Amino acid sequence: MNATKRAGLVGVTGYTGMELTRLLAGHEGIELVRATSRSEAGKPLSAIYPFLQGTKLAGLTITQPDIADLRENCDIVFLAVPHATAMDMAGQLLDAGARVVDLSADFRLRDPAVYQTWYKHEHSRTDILPQAVYGLVELYREDVRKARLVANPGCYPTSSILALYPALAEGLVETDDIVIDAKSGATGAGRKASLGSLFCEVSDTFRAYNLGKHRHTPEIEQEVSRIVGQDILLSFNTHLLPINRGILSTIYTRLKKPVDLAAVRAAYEKHYAGEAWVRLLPAGALPETRFVRGTMFCDIGLVTDPRTGRLIILSAIDNLCRGASGQALANANLMLGLPENMGLNLAPMVP
Amino acid sequence: MNATKRAGLVGVTGYTGMELTRLLAGHEGIELVRATSRSEAGKPLSAIYPFLQGTKLAGLTITQPDIADLRENCDIVFLAVPHATAMDMAGQLLDAGARVVDLSADFRLRDPAVYQTWYKHEHSRTDILPQAVYGLVELYREDVRKARLVANPGCYPTSSILALYPALAEGLVETDDIVIDAKSGATGAGRKASLGSLFCEVSDTFRAYNLGKHRHTPEIEQEVSRIVGQDILLSFNTHLLPINRGILSTIYTRLKKPVDLAAVRAAYEKHYAGEAWVRLLPAGALPETRFVRGTMFCDIGLVTDPRTGRLIILSAIDNLCRGASGQALANANLMLGLPENMGLNLAPMVP
Amino acid sequence: MNATKRAGLVGVTGYTGMELTRLLAGHEGIELVRATSRSEAGKPLSAIYPFLQGTKLAGLTITQPDIADLRENCDIVFLAVPHATAMDMAGQLLDAGARVVDLSADFRLRDPAVYQTWYKHEHSRTDILPQAVYGLVELYREDVRKARLVANPGCYPTSSILALYPALAEGLVETDDIVIDAKSGATGAGRKASLGSLFCEVSDTFRAYNLGKHRHTPEIEQEVSRIVGQDILLSFNTHLLPINRGILSTIYTRLKKPVDLAAVRAAYEKHYAGEAWVRLLPAGALPETRFVRGTMFCDIGLVTDPRTGRLIILSAIDNLCRGASGQALANANLMLGLPENMGLNLAPMVP
Amino acid sequence: MNATKRAGLVGVTGYTGMELTRLLAGHEGIELVRATSRSEAGKPLSAIYPFLQGTKLAGLTITQPDIADLRENCDIVFLAVPHATAMDMAGQLLDAGARVVDLSADFRLRDPAVYQTWYKHEHSRTDILPQAVYGLVELYREDVRKARLVANPGCYPTSSILALYPALAEGLVETDDIVIDAKSGATGAGRKASLGSLFCEVSDTFRAYNLGKHRHTPEIEQEVSRIVGQDILLSFNTHLLPINRGILSTIYTRLKKPVDLAAVRAAYEKHYAGEAWVRLLPAGALPETRFVRGTMFCDIGLVTDPRTGRLIILSAIDNLCRGASGQALANANLMLGLPENMGLNLAPMVP
Repeated sequence: MNATKRAGLVGVTGYTGMELTRLLAGHEGIELVRATSRSEAGKPLSAIYPFLQGTKLAGLTITQPDIADLRENCDIVFLAVPHATAMDMAGQLLDAGARVVDLSADFRLRDPAVYQTWYKHEHSRTDILPQAVYGLVELYREDVRKARLVANPGCYPTSSILALYPALAEGLVETDDIVIDAKSGATGAGRKASLGSLFCEVSDTFRAYNLGKHRHTPEIEQEVSRIVGQDILLSFNTHLLPINRGILSTIYTRLKKPVDLAAVRAAYEKHYAGEAWVRLLPAGALPETRFVRGTMFCDIGLVTDPRTGRLIILSAIDNLCRGASGQALANANLMLGLPENMGLNLAPMVP
Repeated sequence: MNATKRAGLVGVTGYTGMELTRLLAGHEGIELVRATSRSEAGKPLSAIYPFLQGTKLAGLTITQPDIADLRENCDIVFLAVPHATAMDMAGQLLDAGARVVDLSADFRLRDPAVYQTWYKHEHSRTDILPQAVYGLVELYREDVRKARLVANPGCYPTSSILALYPALAEGLVETDDIVIDAKSGATGAGRKASLGSLFCEVSDTFRAYNLGKHRHTPEIEQEVSRIVGQDILLSFNTHLLPINRGILSTIYTRLKKPVDLAAVRAAYEKHYAGEAWVRLLPAGALPETRFVRGTMFCDIGLVTDPRTGRLIILSAIDNLCRGASGQALANANLMLGLPENMGLNLAPMVP
Repeated sequence: MNATKRAGLVGVTGYTGMELTRLLAGHEGIELVRATSRSEAGKPLSAIYPFLQGTKLAGLTITQPDIADLRENCDIVFLAVPHATAMDMAGQLLDAGARVVDLSADFRLRDPAVYQTWYKHEHSRTDILPQAVYGLVELYREDVRKARLVANPGCYPTSSILALYPALAEGLVETDDIVIDAKSGATGAGRKASLGSLFCEVSDTFRAYNLGKHRHTPEIEQEVSRIVGQDILLSFNTHLLPINRGILSTIYTRLKKPVDLAAVRAAYEKHYAGEAWVRLLPAGALPETRFVRGTMFCDIGLVTDPRTGRLIILSAIDNLCRGASGQALANANLMLGLPENMGLNLAPMVP
Repeated sequence: MNATKRAGLVGVTGYTGMELTRLLAGHEGIELVRATSRSEAGKPLSAIYPFLQGTKLAGLTITQPDIADLRENCDIVFLAVPHATAMDMAGQLLDAGARVVDLSADFRLRDPAVYQTWYKHEHSRTDILPQAVYGLVELYREDVRKARLVANPGCYPTSSILALYPALAEGLVETDDIVIDAKSGATGAGRKASLGSLFCEVSDTFRAYNLGKHRHTPEIEQEVSRIVGQDILLSFNTHLLPINRGILSTIYTRLKKPVDLAAVRAAYEKHYAGEAWVRLLPAGALPETRFVRGTMFCDIGLVTDPRTGRLIILSAIDNLCRGASGQALANANLMLGLPENMGLNLAPMVP
């Protein structure tokens, strides 16, 4: 391995930025040399994140984002800024020759018209859109290695695509009767001061939101459609859990023909045999968000229901680590020629 | 109104028993005169429930269950004991001439063969089973008034049946493509010391359980089948929320033909026009468990998804109050000739 | 009892305003006829508080605060606005002849100089300050009945003063060695969108704040000093619990001379014999916030520690109900000639 | 460094056992070769801890505890069994020549009479008690390196002793007026099925327990007495937080003479200058349990209160990691000649 690689992080104040600092504080191959924030520039990182005191990141001073500076000093730049903003900044960084992992949604959708429909914003960098690689390593590992721009997958799509992939690839289930009932911890709502995200508005309650219109819908549809080679429309629906981290997706599909659980499990084992981060649970076991807390694991459980002819697929991930910043780091590892799992061999924190 | 009615509660130590004491502590027409528990007999009620100190129930002493004593001293008896146990005790009480609200599952299923299939226990009192009235007041109010034995509905079924009723009664949705994704607070798991129910095993996590095989499935199917007059099989699936109280059910159905939200709402308004406890939320609003906390309300939200041709129905109840003890009290009120909502005009406790 | 009394609520959008609507929705002697908010005027109350649908308050429309209108249409006005704002508004209402329960801190401190020191704001209505009655019914019940302006006690002071009162009144403990270690649920921080109050910043953690400088300190000192007739300085310190409601105060005092627990308990029984809302727990029992949830109860537990010569006093209240809005309603009941406990006979919601 | 060391863990089913597996799953110098449990022997470790699937510990099979087997195959044995049981087992292991880190209380108290008074059990191995080293590395690092038996400190004592150490060593505070108000997450109550530890009995509430009589009291007194060379009695009191992990201790002391915060901070900086795991927070900052989650850090905050002449010391640790299993691992590292922090360079998991 060569010398330590240098990373920049644009947008350090959100939960995905925070999670990247947590992971980079323990990464031995990548050094965070720039952390930017328009509102917090000038402060040491440990002033906004006291938990970083005593780690190797404690001394880093937050700076204003500066394309030239990032280009010059960083081998890779993580963008943890809102969509639309990311688009322009990624473009400038790529124009300047930098390599970028974009955690926003701006380069995930291959069709800019779909982007505009769902995000209500015209895509300003359709010129570089074709370069973007969708950074789900189980599907696009080799492309990521060569990428200059990685579109880091959304949290819900990571959970849903990994869960559906073998069932669709093996043709086990109907493609016109897929319902995803997804539940996410509150970090998914971001780190903005808003009434609806207050402790007393989220604690001790449970609610659905954005039913039938969540922006992750076209991202999931794009990728599952590619798996089967035909356009799939599915029903994707989201709920807010009173926990910090974790997504559990319960996915309802209809089996094309009756198969037993062993056969379904065999399909999943075949597709994920070499994948260290996808854990197919033993028959009868179901995933829980705590068992993946703080890690890259995606736990998958399978249930066949002969009464109704359905296959129910469950998957659990940590939305911040596997669903955002950890996944971004895995992509960066690959882009930089480091071992994919470097800094990411984390045991789940239970309880 | 006549003099105060006297009630007995068999099985006071579980969460449904506890909830009944909370509600009866503030009820002006029913006096709790017997509270029984084999393990706690001899103690004052406030010794096991310190929160009752200073209420009118504080002085009541817990006794051993005694059929003759209950028959003699109570106008109504609530059974908050496990299934199978309830069956025999209800039978004895009825034989002795008492009136009973049974909170267990023993008299909910009209077909004893279905009971045996799902509960793995032969029904010992098929003789009185036909007398039992399913105590969902919105559907069976008049029958409840005349009943000597009320089978108090399960928590999940209450939430599911009320949500599906107008859509099925009006023939809006297909009957062979119904998926219920239900999530419940931890009181639903009962008040038994078990490893899986420990704070540190439930807190800060989320999991599914009993997928495709929850015992409330046949209860829901029985009632929705009656609504449409044909046998319905549906997919009913349950999850455990890290909260104390509340059920949110997200129900996926397929519209028979495209209709707009207003038409669906009209169907619900028609069926629930006079029902004080069913709140059809304004268009665009979705239910939350906190908004029904501690009350009899069942909040219903409706979403049509033209992309997939689905109608998504959401309902929220408090599993302990509306889904168990409050509903039992409403049934008792009706059986005793008291106003249905007596002692149950509770504002939700938010936050 | 006369006809229903009419109440106005200025500042309906905070948690104390919200709690007042919860309580007034079930109050049979007071009708809420005005609920004001500068930001939400024009909306029905149920639009901002969906939990009120189906209650008698659902139809009320939020209005702009208007002194003349409040004066004309309300028998009593609750002020649930920030300190400093409350001062002026209370003054105008009193000048116009209205009766006021002020939930802010503006009229709690008898000495305006102390107010200025702790609140960094000059008191603009020292003219009416002497009229204000400190609305802790156990200490000032008769004064409240005659008051035109009641200063509703702070949440922490309610918990602390009731806990210390008998021990100080009976001279059991030293007055120069009192430490109050108080812990509050997050509703105490108010309903403002701020980063520090987000779910993900409060959940699954615990912290102290404002040590040695909380503004409730002089309020507690004022009242306990009156009890003993000498100036008392004490150490008052606060912590934030990851729960919505509840304050538990652990109060460390030093016994003047060794006494056994029975003697201490006798002092508390003597002082609180007729008080329905103060529950002295049995020897050995300790209060929990859940046992008072949603109610007016103040639960008190006592522990003597012969090793260190200390008396430890614990008290638990619901900070929103007993510590704010419920207490305000009790004061209003008294001011309006209604039974003190009207609308407040609430059983704790456990679990 | 030599070859990988082999460790045994006796009592894998409790929370401290669970935490040790989490930490050893990522430790590169120690391999867990034995994990024992009388009730779970024969199962793979991942059957009881699904979160370990995919880690290097997944394949380990749980065995019955066997002294000879442990002696033969392990370089070090961790005892995570109840007190009294630990005493005998540690004795047998030492007799057989093994090295032991005992996580129970059995060898923490130097005086067996004190042990008997507080634990109501006669000490059966007073012969080896003098060998035991109290495994708080900041105080006894060099002794630990040479120890064959380490008494791993209790969670509360770790938090309290580290907080008090500099203030007492420098003679800043009175020794007869120390009050420790400690609050712990629910893992501290252990992983036993008991009614009081159920989710619905701990969630959304807060309570004190064992006031004035917690068994960690003599352990704290022993160590702080040694620091100052005189017997100290203090008031130690505990509370249960509705969170999984974390202890926050708020410690009230009286300054011998007025000093400013800077002077107090200087004393702490002097004592903890070289200690990587003790983080003295910046002036004005206060510790939070989340900032140390999953780590070895002990965060300390200091507040001087000139009004009352007090110094308030706050400390936060993770009770399972720093307060138990992580500390045990640090001790094992030292005993085995490994770097003290090996496998323990963990960034806190926030949020």
